[in-house]
Amino acid sequence: MITGENYIGKERSSKGGVTYKTINPKLNIENEDLFYEASEEEVNKAVVKASKAFKTYRSLSGAKKAAFLNAIADEILELGDTLIAMYQSESGLPEGRAMGERGRTIGQLRGFAQMLENGSWADAVIDTADPERTPIPKQDLRKLSIPLGPVVVFGASNFPFAFSTAGGDTASALAAGCPVIVKSHPMHAGTGELVASAVIKAAEQTGMPDGVFSNLNSSGIDVGVQLVKHPEVKAVGFTGSIRGGRALYDIATQRPEPIPVFAEMGSINPVVLLPEATEKRGEALAKTYAGSITLGAGQFCTNPGLLIGIKGDALNTFIEALSKEIVTVEPSCMLHPNIIGNYEKNKANALKQEGLSVVADYESEVAVNHARQTVVTVEGKTFLENSTLHHEVFGPFSMIVSCENLAQLEEVISKLEGQLTGTILAETEELKKNDSIVKALQNRVGRIIFNGVPTGVEVCPAMQHGGPYPASTDSRFTAVGIQSVKRWVRPFSYQSWPDELLPDELKNDNPLGVLRCVNGVYTTDKI
Amino acid sequence: MITGENYIGKERSSKGGVTYKTINPKLNIENEDLFYEASEEEVNKAVVKASKAFKTYRSLSGAKKAAFLNAIADEILELGDTLIAMYQSESGLPEGRAMGERGRTIGQLRGFAQMLENGSWADAVIDTADPERTPIPKQDLRKLSIPLGPVVVFGASNFPFAFSTAGGDTASALAAGCPVIVKSHPMHAGTGELVASAVIKAAEQTGMPDGVFSNLNSSGIDVGVQLVKHPEVKAVGFTGSIRGGRALYDIATQRPEPIPVFAEMGSINPVVLLPEATEKRGEALAKTYAGSITLGAGQFCTNPGLLIGIKGDALNTFIEALSKEIVTVEPSCMLHPNIIGNYEKNKANALKQEGLSVVADYESEVAVNHARQTVVTVEGKTFLENSTLHHEVFGPFSMIVSCENLAQLEEVISKLEGQLTGTILAETEELKKNDSIVKALQNRVGRIIFNGVPTGVEVCPAMQHGGPYPASTDSRFTAVGIQSVKRWVRPFSYQSWPDELLPDELKNDNPLGVLRCVNGVYTTDKI
Repeated sequence: MITGENYIGKERSSKGGVTYKTINPKLNIENEDLFYEASEEEVNKAVVKASKAFKTYRSLSGAKKAAFLNAIADEILELGDTLIAMYQSESGLPEGRAMGERGRTIGQLRGFAQMLENGSWADAVIDTADPERTPIPKQDLRKLSIPLGPVVVFGASNFPFAFSTAGGDTASALAAGCPVIVKSHPMHAGTGELVASAVIKAAEQTGMPDGVFSNLNSSGIDVGVQLVKHPEVKAVGFTGSIRGGRALYDIATQRPEPIPVFAEMGSINPVVLLPEATEKRGEALAKTYAGSITLGAGQFCTNPGLLIGIKGDALNTFIEALSKEIVTVEPSCMLHPNIIGNYEKNKANALKQEGLSVVADYESEVAVNHARQTVVTVEGKTFLENSTLHHEVFGPFSMIVSCENLAQLEEVISKLEGQLTGTILAETEELKKNDSIVKALQNRVGRIIFNGVPTGVEVCPAMQHGGPYPASTDSRFTAVGIQSVKRWVRPFSYQSWPDELLPDELKNDNPLGVLRCVNGVYTTDKI
Repeated sequence: MITGENYIGKERSSKGGVTYKTINPKLNIENEDLFYEASEEEVNKAVVKASKAFKTYRSLSGAKKAAFLNAIADEILELGDTLIAMYQSESGLPEGRAMGERGRTIGQLRGFAQMLENGSWADAVIDTADPERTPIPKQDLRKLSIPLGPVVVFGASNFPFAFSTAGGDTASALAAGCPVIVKSHPMHAGTGELVASAVIKAAEQTGMPDGVFSNLNSSGIDVGVQLVKHPEVKAVGFTGSIRGGRALYDIATQRPEPIPVFAEMGSINPVVLLPEATEKRGEALAKTYAGSITLGAGQFCTNPGLLIGIKGDALNTFIEALSKEIVTVEPSCMLHPNIIGNYEKNKANALKQEGLSVVADYESEVAVNHARQTVVTVEGKTFLENSTLHHEVFGPFSMIVSCENLAQLEEVISKLEGQLTGTILAETEELKKNDSIVKALQNRVGRIIFNGVPTGVEVCPAMQHGGPYPASTDSRFTAVGIQSVKRWVRPFSYQSWPDELLPDELKNDNPLGVLRCVNGVYTTDKI
């Protein structure tokens, strides 16, 4: 069923000389299928096709694009157990996770389809003419979001479905009206090919132009670099490491025509333990956090890698309980030998830093590629002095910073790099009294959580997934939820345009019934 | 009245060794006042103050920030004739223009104040909890736009009021909750100081934190570079040349923590003449365009620098009429000897290109620093082959491209760099028949105009001022209208946050009565 070929639009192609295989991390063996890395010529062809497809795809009605997205969801489900088995063989993740992530991916596609059917997403704004105005008449102006052009999406290692081939970046870009070229993640190329086949089928069924979607295999960096440098590519979506995301951002911003890159990168997701809550609920919190830290072998971008508390008995009790609890969690398999290799290396590097104490370490034997969870503690002062300790160790590793007092805790927060999330564990009255800590944390993160865990990213309009650099390259956008479509569109104004030639969203009689801001008032009324 | 000092917050300071004067271009003499360029220490102090001010300013209510903006408008008006005279002496622009631009600036400040009073601008989105949901309960999530941090604004040469010290960038950033540090434009440093004094007075009257606004003098590039590199600066607004904007963009994107730069740069604002309209209304259009090309000595970013038509009698008639009409316009004074120097240099360089014919050139004597208007023609093929011809000549210069047919005209459009505006002069039926030309033009511009002129940028919510690079560095934002506030904010989510501690916009009972998207529905209702 797997051909190992690239999809250049609907055409299958394998002209490159480089081949590679994926790995089953649970069995620690190579999978059988051979994948053909896209050649320079194939990469170029995919972009040229996308650019051509853009000419028609950009103007399709919301209903037609919605039908396409729904068909993708249907075709993914149609792949059934084959897809789930492939996902597991390339990620080492359990079946339940595969099913859950597929559900999330389907939900995202249908969510964007619903957004398109409604039509209000494109931010229609209308200011009608006033020919009588003095000293100069006012012209009629009408604004709507339009797509940027072909978008390149880099699949993520840790979400083979939800942030890869037909994941959030692809779904939002297609919804915006942008053709998508996926740079397939080499760790799950087979999963990628299966999902790509579903997208291509859906495109053909719903009459989309050839080139609206391509899927390019790649085991190194060349394909990605060529894509980001290509003059016909107009934006980039990426989920992965800070090093990778920054490299792409640098290439994109140094082009003759710079293009936007939305890279969702690293985060240690600080969790602040205020003293009263720690005292009252320390043990229960410890249990919850033992689960959050080890969830999915710590391979979530919202994994809580840093806990910050105030020195004392309550914090000690919390540390003891967390340490005791976390070693009872059965280690799980990481996504790839390289990923567990990096985990071990980065953890070892952290442990070499002065002033760290290991308080929990899973010591029993583990199966191959399974990650041992580790918790360490460090003094606030030491943490402040050594920025190496501020960096993410991707995996089930967490650091507890014990501060002298609230002032030092606030200083620790304000010295952190940008983060996706920040959590405060506190009594409500305690939260009220510590407004400056809340404000300091707010200034470093994209989402703030009260008495919960950062893991579990709800897909809903009010979700912000993205934060100050290096959590993402542009904190003004989200990577999750329907508002992620805003990454791929730009506002466009029509001045004095004939009503019959305006897009439906801007016509006087509002045939789609969309919500519009008309002369400063939001309404679905006709004009 | 002018001290030549910098405003480091409310403190006046002149510690730098470099001084400079402005020039009265009409008289071609230096003005008397001496300005002290900000020293490295002063620049740093301004940023540190801004960063400190941000801690309180960011959380002020909309009503308080609105009072500040309204007070700025009042204080600018309070400066009366002194300010108008200073503006004229530093720009060579006539009194009517000074008054008009002041009105626009006041209007922008009051427009943002009104936006803040209403409170709906911050895009409140609420998804309420569903504890019964399976398999996992849904958390309460509430999202709101929050400010990025200190913003640096580079004043523009061609709008000493509306795009400078207290112009659109400053007003929108202050409205967003960001302190502003203005890098004053050296050509109108006195105007800048007077307006800065108004801002500082307003800040003191309305109890704003010291550092919410600073105004730094600078005659070279060092102050700007230091500002954009400063780690506490979080965003940049710029209006000016492609070279200047790109340099700042490169610095900002290559920082350890990259920051967004919104630079509004060059544009030749293509105008497409379709054949029927040219035939029917050629002479009238020629008159209108003679006015648009020479308006303000061509010193508008929306000046029509390129007209594209189809070879033939109708176009010839238009060219003749335009040529005849445009030389009847009295030349006007440019902003600065350097600006007219560049105009003459760039025009001479364009005229050196092969295949250009001069069809109109103001030949009579002109006063010092007054710009002679020039119109040239070129064949479509020649234009396509020589990209030098695609570059802006800032001033009253326009090029008419005469194409073989509509296909070549479409090719010319699609080969253009990104533009602020594109205009189509056509009969309605003719517009209908040429959808692919409209689409090609739409893909290169931020605003499209039917049967009008690109000059005259209305300040209203439906205005898009910004377009694909190099018209601006990020086409996803506008520099004009209240939506320009979006450049300086980022979405921020609260998860499971206690209602009483949420910002008013997100509280259940919606005390400000703002428009919110609650569980997918836009409403001003309580929850």
